Amino acid sequence: MKIKLLAAGLALALSAGVAGTAFAQVKPEVLVKQRQSAMTLQGKYIGPLAGMLKGAVPFDASVAARNAAFLDALSQMPWDGFAESTKGEKSRALPVIWSDAAKFKQSQDQFRTAVGALVSATKGGNEAAVKSAVGDVLKTCNGCHDTFRQN
Amino acid sequence: MKIKLLAAGLALALSAGVAGTAFAQVKPEVLVKQRQSAMTLQGKYIGPLAGMLKGAVPFDASVAARNAAFLDALSQMPWDGFAESTKGEKSRALPVIWSDAAKFKQSQDQFRTAVGALVSATKGGNEAAVKSAVGDVLKTCNGCHDTFRQN
Repeated sequence: MKIKLLAAGLALALSAGVAGTAFAQVKPEVLVKQRQSAMTLQGKYIGPLAGMLKGAVPFDASVAARNAAFLDALSQMPWDGFAESTKGEKSRALPVIWSDAAKFKQSQDQFRTAVGALVSATKGGNEAAVKSAVGDVLKTCNGCHDTFRQN
Repeated sequence: MKIKLLAAGLALALSAGVAGTAFAQVKPEVLVKQRQSAMTLQGKYIGPLAGMLKGAVPFDASVAARNAAFLDALSQMPWDGFAESTKGEKSRALPVIWSDAAKFKQSQDQFRTAVGALVSATKGGNEAAVKSAVGDVLKTCNGCHDTFRQN
């Protein structure tokens, strides 16, 4: 039983070349699935925060803090999945991701910075500050999607 | 632009009922997609660790620490997606998840505990301790899959 997953993990690790850093040899369709999974989970955890910002759901400081912490991890996960090898895969990723890699990286950094500020705000527990930080995160989501994702 | 994602997030938040805690009204297919996304990402980050345990890829303490931290977050994410409402959805989840919820919860807790020990081990930086902890995590993965997932 243990061997089964170990073997699967091993195959994955081997295909990744150097553990966790060189993803060039992971199958393109796996990279796409992984990066889309990170985006799906970002949606899961930003959704309720957007609802709080809009006033549609009651503000809950502990949910906000938990979701912000999850987003802090998730916001680091998609980017190595946008390898050149995935250019031909079916997805909503636009070619500008590769033709203007510097701008794509800048957008990632803006998102990461906004999420970091959100984490800080949730630690303070001030509702207005958290909501403001949520709005800033959503701006970076949309800014990136407008440029790098097919609508 | 901002409004677009805000509206989407809002719809998600509203369908979630109380922000982030009551998921009963999120569409079953969305819950399945979210929980599968968490599993996909667990695979992404446990894979290289399994490779290190097997000796197939060189031990890298910083990759191990990063992956362990990501797993610490990811290991909390799938479980609220196993709502009763998803019983009829196409997935590999077995009915015993709902017929023996206590056992399923126990398996989740064992996984979480093993991941916590892995995080601690990576902070210590001792290769043998990290590898032992990786093995323990893999045992809990397989233990849960053997019982609760269709092979």
